[in-house]
Amino acid sequence: MYHGNLFIISAPSGTGKTTILKKTIAAMKEIVFSVSHTTRTPRAGEQEGVDYFFIDKDVFLSMEQQGLFLEWAEVHGNLYGTSRSTIQAEAEKGLDIILDIDVQGARQVNEKFKDKGVFIFIAPPSLEELARRLAGRSTEAEAIIATRLANAKEEMKSIDDYDYVIVNDTVEQAVEVLKSIIIAERSRTRRDLSGEPLNLVF
Amino acid sequence: MYHGNLFIISAPSGTGKTTILKKTIAAMKEIVFSVSHTTRTPRAGEQEGVDYFFIDKDVFLSMEQQGLFLEWAEVHGNLYGTSRSTIQAEAEKGLDIILDIDVQGARQVNEKFKDKGVFIFIAPPSLEELARRLAGRSTEAEAIIATRLANAKEEMKSIDDYDYVIVNDTVEQAVEVLKSIIIAERSRTRRDLSGEPLNLVF
Repeated sequence: MYHGNLFIISAPSGTGKTTILKKTIAAMKEIVFSVSHTTRTPRAGEQEGVDYFFIDKDVFLSMEQQGLFLEWAEVHGNLYGTSRSTIQAEAEKGLDIILDIDVQGARQVNEKFKDKGVFIFIAPPSLEELARRLAGRSTEAEAIIATRLANAKEEMKSIDDYDYVIVNDTVEQAVEVLKSIIIAERSRTRRDLSGEPLNLVF
Repeated sequence: MYHGNLFIISAPSGTGKTTILKKTIAAMKEIVFSVSHTTRTPRAGEQEGVDYFFIDKDVFLSMEQQGLFLEWAEVHGNLYGTSRSTIQAEAEKGLDIILDIDVQGARQVNEKFKDKGVFIFIAPPSLEELARRLAGRSTEAEAIIATRLANAKEEMKSIDDYDYVIVNDTVEQAVEVLKSIIIAERSRTRRDLSGEPLNLVF
């Protein structure tokens, strides 16, 4: 079984992506979550170095200027980036890596690693259902929910940049499909035959 | 979730393919096994119309001449063929179909349905292990085992015609991987987006 795949996963805000990723990684071996850098304020329960590396905007911009990010994007007014060194370290261990990034970041990775990444989009069952789920998060103001819904509608247009789409009807089923995609990708002949490790030439 | 995929599965004799396919189909929904025609004598426990349609060689050759087979091949001195009408009927129901055919037949299907079929090769852990498993089938003479091993060695060279390879270390694990491949393929965007049903234009 070949490891060292790069799984790029995107989903509109509120689709349940974080829960799905955590459950999937907990249930599998030899796969790690690549922790992103962000200028966003931590939410309740989020841990530094586990969920994100929380940094100030000037630090982020300085890192970006030094070319330390593989991809970065502004989402809902906050900056998010994937540091090259974080991924490099995991890739060298031969582990499968999950990148949780938005559609803009995914497009940047796609340009750099077209045939190496496996692109997965997690979609809500419908925009109506997404609206209900976002409203259920009592922490957010109505205006923010409206913005997120408008963004979701826009992001859904990028689905054809992805190899797979997982519709999150229930978390259990979505985790099952994501696990299946990871197992299937590990059994691809093109990777088995080439024996080529994930080569992140920057 | 999109259905109507054509899974083409090959494996050297003695690899455990039949057991893996039966267990996988029993555990899943909306997937059927395409029953082949053969001139081979039924083995103990094999049922007409379930495992194969057992027919005489002259009937087989007459069907072949009428163009009734999607693919056919001679394997170990017996003829095996996939009837177009059998597949057509399942495809029209929108079901996923599993074709259990040898590397020659797979090559014929690949030429006809290149981008529609999902090609899966089941491999033994090693040729030594395959020899042990074939010897364990007490029904077969040593000369037949030697032929099967030589054929296996030859068939393994075709692995790069396939999309996936499943190494049958244990049946349980191989079934798990095959199920995962089927679930993953049902989540492909290219199929979801096209919404195109399996179109078997003969």
